[in-house]
Amino acid sequence: MSRAMRCEVLAIGTELLLGQIVDTNSAWIGEQLALAGIDSYEHRVIGDNLDRIVAAIEDLLSRSDALIICGGLGPTQDDLTRDAIAAWMEVPLIRHDDLVEHIAKMFSARARDMPQNNLRQADVPEGAEAIPNPIGTAPGVRAPHRDKVIYAVPGVPYEMQKMISEQVLPDLLERAGGRAAIVSRSLKTWGASESGIAEMVAHRVDALEAAGNPTIAFLARGIEGLVVRITAKGASLAEAEALVEAEEVELRAILGDLVFGVDDETMEHAVLKALHARKLTLGIAESLTGGLIGARIVNVPGASDTFKGSLVTYATDVKRDLLDVVASSVVSEAAAKEMAGAARRLLDADVGIAATGVAGPTEQDGLAPGTVCFGIALPGGVVEGVTTRLPGDRERVRQFATISLLNLLRMRLDALP
Amino acid sequence: MSRAMRCEVLAIGTELLLGQIVDTNSAWIGEQLALAGIDSYEHRVIGDNLDRIVAAIEDLLSRSDALIICGGLGPTQDDLTRDAIAAWMEVPLIRHDDLVEHIAKMFSARARDMPQNNLRQADVPEGAEAIPNPIGTAPGVRAPHRDKVIYAVPGVPYEMQKMISEQVLPDLLERAGGRAAIVSRSLKTWGASESGIAEMVAHRVDALEAAGNPTIAFLARGIEGLVVRITAKGASLAEAEALVEAEEVELRAILGDLVFGVDDETMEHAVLKALHARKLTLGIAESLTGGLIGARIVNVPGASDTFKGSLVTYATDVKRDLLDVVASSVVSEAAAKEMAGAARRLLDADVGIAATGVAGPTEQDGLAPGTVCFGIALPGGVVEGVTTRLPGDRERVRQFATISLLNLLRMRLDALP
Repeated sequence: MSRAMRCEVLAIGTELLLGQIVDTNSAWIGEQLALAGIDSYEHRVIGDNLDRIVAAIEDLLSRSDALIICGGLGPTQDDLTRDAIAAWMEVPLIRHDDLVEHIAKMFSARARDMPQNNLRQADVPEGAEAIPNPIGTAPGVRAPHRDKVIYAVPGVPYEMQKMISEQVLPDLLERAGGRAAIVSRSLKTWGASESGIAEMVAHRVDALEAAGNPTIAFLARGIEGLVVRITAKGASLAEAEALVEAEEVELRAILGDLVFGVDDETMEHAVLKALHARKLTLGIAESLTGGLIGARIVNVPGASDTFKGSLVTYATDVKRDLLDVVASSVVSEAAAKEMAGAARRLLDADVGIAATGVAGPTEQDGLAPGTVCFGIALPGGVVEGVTTRLPGDRERVRQFATISLLNLLRMRLDALP
Repeated sequence: MSRAMRCEVLAIGTELLLGQIVDTNSAWIGEQLALAGIDSYEHRVIGDNLDRIVAAIEDLLSRSDALIICGGLGPTQDDLTRDAIAAWMEVPLIRHDDLVEHIAKMFSARARDMPQNNLRQADVPEGAEAIPNPIGTAPGVRAPHRDKVIYAVPGVPYEMQKMISEQVLPDLLERAGGRAAIVSRSLKTWGASESGIAEMVAHRVDALEAAGNPTIAFLARGIEGLVVRITAKGASLAEAEALVEAEEVELRAILGDLVFGVDDETMEHAVLKALHARKLTLGIAESLTGGLIGARIVNVPGASDTFKGSLVTYATDVKRDLLDVVASSVVSEAAAKEMAGAARRLLDADVGIAATGVAGPTEQDGLAPGTVCFGIALPGGVVEGVTTRLPGDRERVRQFATISLLNLLRMRLDALP
């Protein structure tokens, strides 16, 4: 980028001040700006009050090159972002016929009558332009004025994110005199610590440092693991994508099977993909997780091709009577292996997995909270048991047990001949 | 309150600007201020930069009576809230011996060495006072200066919330010349719309309006239902509590069994409490929910006294083979009733419940997404079936089905002789 650029974020809405909604948009926008190498020194939330919004715009732009305003683009009299931008530019609002048409079309596609109020969303300050919103009624606004610029985007997260990624960031980067396309890809890893991963890829980070493009960032995602994100800029989308892809090849060679997915792919996606590729069905037996493992699996549309069911045997007598567990302790590798085998047998599945353990808060049968045993029964009769000790409170132990077992299954499936 | 008071919120932390953490604290504080009748016109986030924090303090207090600063009270050189307040007051920081002692005690209680850096947390601007933090190392700061006041609280949500509720709000209310104690209680309801509830209690809202104390607010909580919150102020805690309790009696008489819990109680708490009181055990059979119902039940510590398990029969052949379902369609009231009976029988439980349905996104056996059937098998052999149509996408349908069935069970248990 040829010069450092600064862009602040202003969220609009009295409901945010009252705490009826948590503002997650500003954090997301802040993350995107940071990835693009644009500085952001301040996020601000202001209610639905025209004078205060205009004062905030003037104050923020007195120290900054650009401003992203989020929210206040709806159809009601409380939605004042368009009016505030017009006041800042000292121009009137102009109704755009093409926007009227787009909004009318969105309503008719949903077979709903369009309230007259919605026409307000077709108003754009004179000298500014609308940013198209293909998935909602509220267009955004791009308002250059003197040497500054305001981008107004809707408060609906999905609409906002699409508009920022596809329209706002490229425009900001171009204004900064840099390369206009930015692409990022997240390699999702599980099973290594942040410092471990950082050490493994340190020489790639060093190698990229001089050119500064692409860049590598590490993002901790709690029990969902650690994300290694590659971000590249280019004169075109194709150029940026090629840079990301080349670096992905380098990183995958280093990280190997620590990488379980890319971008929005979850651990349950990875597991179902691995099962599906081998035409294997899955049955589960759960104890401490209470059904969480099954619930994650059915998060994936189309899970029914592969997932037979889960036997949540919380009480000891149910483990004994329904699953025929004979191991003396129901929290043991032996019990977990029996449970996995029973899941495979009773649910008529190719693969059976099981988790039993102590979620806490108190110990059980002399075992500390966080003690968890997994069982995996694979086609051909191989049954494996694994014992682990997971950190955190009751809820965290259960979440950790769920993703740990799914990751173990993914690794075992990948290793099948 | 004798005069309108205005208090803004300033969150400190570069990690908030970078989107590594979402600022949920400001929304929570905003909600508490609104409940207490204190105006808040602006929330702001600033990074770990002394000049910018001081500038934000001065700007915010130029228009406001009070300011709550959240975060930046940690032990590192990046934690600048204490320094910024001292700069605003134009005073030095003074190290407090009693705070040094408290911090040393917190470390020794956790059997950890105290890094020298942590002594910075014992520094307080001259003329300001520390706010005790019984559950963490970072004390808060109360800094009155000229006719304004700053309260600094830790960024750790649990510590922050305790300090705001117990120390900051009473002090703010006293400064406003009003009554110093504030108490609120949330009655959690399920099964009626916001407008429906509002209509039912309209005469209570009207009756309270003149005095303005206590007040009633409605808070939508999505699939978790609707909260009716009573808030009262008093000269003492006991006075405020008495007002809340009297109003709770009035509202419960109107709302009846729509109320399933109070404050932090969840639907699964309510269900387990009802089962426990009647010494009944629970078994579940789930299909579309994939294990979510069981997973919610085991959220409650001590669930093992009551919860036997859940048979997640996702595949049709498992419903037939394991549960002996003979109904021609596995999404039908007949199937749900058979599943509930089988859960009761196979899990050796007193009560069996079941959910089967179409989560979507596509229809199944000619049934639209959102079609869900519930079964409830009670002691004595009574088995009931209910069909409903739930809104939303796949995930929402599953969540809705889970809480709908738990609520249905709660109502049936409450009606038992």
